[in-house]
Amino acid sequence: MYKNLKNKVATPVIRRLPVYYRKLSDCVEQGRDRISSQELSELCGFSASQIRQDLNHFGGFGQQGYGYNTALLRDEIAQILGIHNRYKAVVVGAGRLGTAIFEYEGIRKSGFDIVALFDNDPKKIGMKVEHVTIEPADELLHYIDHHQVDVAIITVPKTAAEEIIRRLDAHGIRGIWNFAPVDVNVTHSIVENTRINDSILKLSYYLQHGR
Amino acid sequence: MYKNLKNKVATPVIRRLPVYYRKLSDCVEQGRDRISSQELSELCGFSASQIRQDLNHFGGFGQQGYGYNTALLRDEIAQILGIHNRYKAVVVGAGRLGTAIFEYEGIRKSGFDIVALFDNDPKKIGMKVEHVTIEPADELLHYIDHHQVDVAIITVPKTAAEEIIRRLDAHGIRGIWNFAPVDVNVTHSIVENTRINDSILKLSYYLQHGR
Repeated sequence: MYKNLKNKVATPVIRRLPVYYRKLSDCVEQGRDRISSQELSELCGFSASQIRQDLNHFGGFGQQGYGYNTALLRDEIAQILGIHNRYKAVVVGAGRLGTAIFEYEGIRKSGFDIVALFDNDPKKIGMKVEHVTIEPADELLHYIDHHQVDVAIITVPKTAAEEIIRRLDAHGIRGIWNFAPVDVNVTHSIVENTRINDSILKLSYYLQHGR
Repeated sequence: MYKNLKNKVATPVIRRLPVYYRKLSDCVEQGRDRISSQELSELCGFSASQIRQDLNHFGGFGQQGYGYNTALLRDEIAQILGIHNRYKAVVVGAGRLGTAIFEYEGIRKSGFDIVALFDNDPKKIGMKVEHVTIEPADELLHYIDHHQVDVAIITVPKTAAEEIIRRLDAHGIRGIWNFAPVDVNVTHSIVENTRINDSILKLSYYLQHGR
């Protein structure tokens, strides 16, 4: 049912789904087999009514007086999130962040297999990270033409990121996971921006004003 | 005035402040010296009335019929965010992510100077990243006792992160920037969590369901 959602789900709901997934996975790991929306609320920091409302978007799953079966709800959310799909990804920018992403097992667990790394630094080109050789950045589009690539992960500096994202979008890539602090208007691709710098500014705010 | 905010500002407002700061910085860089809330709305993706409401929390700044002076508003937001404060930070976990954070100039620009790196891998201890030597993780608390450390940046795996965060909190550290996918109930510290994995799950959702 949730594979073809009839109504568009609002961004804040989608932002909370990974949190539910993470908390429910922890519960399952700890051997906890059921949970009330109130208990889930305490774990997640969203109100119980918010949680019930969110999950109703996707058809409910809870039972009055029982709560939620943690493993079942986790698996349902995993399916809503599409975790069991497999995607091929390339990393553009084989610096420390790019290689950190490359090695991060959470990426693989979430359905993304990184098949290639690109960089424009001649000193890096040809080097291996695990079993993958770093390729020249100017062969990126050629590579995409000849291999299945669903997602590009952008870890190059701000100055280079805009142009690369624009080209990848024009080239028809499905997904772009962007770590550079730029916003690019795309026409085709789905872009997810991770703003590491916004996080540190939030911390800075709270250090000054208190929580 | 905004150094001692009388009313607690809601989390979503604080989450938008870094976005305003980033967009206004881009405007100033591009030589654009004024901007209406409508134009700022198009850049940020929040409604113009949302923006006016947010900025009213901190005293307004806009002028009817003129809009905002970009440099002035950027500087005001910088002060609200506390960017001009300097904090001393340590990185716990000198893997690829930890060293990527260490080298990321955005951190320094946001007011954080990383003064030490810790790891529990004997092969890493004693190695240098730029001018800083990697120290043994079990000397972390001792180090904090003898140096000014405002913030700890946690880039260790999930399994180790919980215990380290608990200890740092008990030890009275002011701020913790946590990259591990754990939530720890702290009593003292201000914790900012950056959830890289939640981002990839959001992307996965949109790849399945469309934007």
